[in-house]
Amino acid sequence: MELLKERIRAEGSVLPGNILKVGSFLNQQMDIALYNEMGKEFARRFSGTKISRIVTIEASGIGLACITAQYFNVPVVFAKKHRSANVSGDLLSATITSYTHQTEYTVILPKAYVRPGDSVLVIDDFLANGCALEGLVSMIVSGGATVAGAGIAIEKGFQGGGDRLRARGVRVESLAIVEALEGPEGIVFRK
Amino acid sequence: MELLKERIRAEGSVLPGNILKVGSFLNQQMDIALYNEMGKEFARRFSGTKISRIVTIEASGIGLACITAQYFNVPVVFAKKHRSANVSGDLLSATITSYTHQTEYTVILPKAYVRPGDSVLVIDDFLANGCALEGLVSMIVSGGATVAGAGIAIEKGFQGGGDRLRARGVRVESLAIVEALEGPEGIVFRK
Repeated sequence: MELLKERIRAEGSVLPGNILKVGSFLNQQMDIALYNEMGKEFARRFSGTKISRIVTIEASGIGLACITAQYFNVPVVFAKKHRSANVSGDLLSATITSYTHQTEYTVILPKAYVRPGDSVLVIDDFLANGCALEGLVSMIVSGGATVAGAGIAIEKGFQGGGDRLRARGVRVESLAIVEALEGPEGIVFRK
Repeated sequence: MELLKERIRAEGSVLPGNILKVGSFLNQQMDIALYNEMGKEFARRFSGTKISRIVTIEASGIGLACITAQYFNVPVVFAKKHRSANVSGDLLSATITSYTHQTEYTVILPKAYVRPGDSVLVIDDFLANGCALEGLVSMIVSGGATVAGAGIAIEKGFQGGGDRLRARGVRVESLAIVEALEGPEGIVFRK
């Protein structure tokens, strides 16, 4: 998606450790007009696919998931990163390793909000090593639902998570795939 | 807002410790059509007020803030609950005590995303003892911006946070104010 790539080129900065900082428009300050264009693009790519629910993970995926949901007319559910006092009932869970934070954490999703027969679109802002997406996929499948696909804003292609999931049969649609960040050419996108 | 109160009556449940669980439509599964109605209502209440930016706090305020932002044509910024590796630059911060989780935590907001001269609308799903909102207000003011007001989905009026902030001159617009949860009449709303 050229509009997103242009913003990454214009405002993205690369921090040590192959971290791409896009906080000015994507994952801390959120440009809602851009979000709407991304939501429309996900709707275009998944047109003709049955989607009954969108699932994301806190925190930075939530905004994009909510804006995108308007183009599918479905509810959004987000997986929480730790058990909190106001979650009750039967839970799905997965353990995820964060590349950015170099930590492991547990995510949970109430079974009541991902039902057998659901056809789920996963939305997230970033896909790197794929651990978060793998965890979401395993929770959705163990809840008896189907993963229709994943819509990602920025995939770090060189970390391989997206391609591993594609090889397993998960449809991953990323709006911008970055192949290199720190080389002599700067930020390079997959053709 | 009658539509929200109806949903709270129909789907809300009260957990021990005066916790109101509304995860089925507000803060874990998110009903985007309802969110749009809430966003329109905030726009109606704050019509004629200059708003240049919406600020919220991760995680459950983000969705409502993003949907609401469409009615104000402004960007959304969310305060993060801990410093993460992909935040850099000068930061505003505040310490917040969580009623639900009985813990203290630090929230941060990059100065670059709340600028002197900004007129900020704070959006959040819940207002209870007001610590989160007080922390956001103090960060916004110390960043040189003005707080135009706060738009809250559910205020727990009996915990007093909203009224304390109103007494300090902050305009707090809550779409449903709960005065009692555990009494003989069940959930009671402020008239």
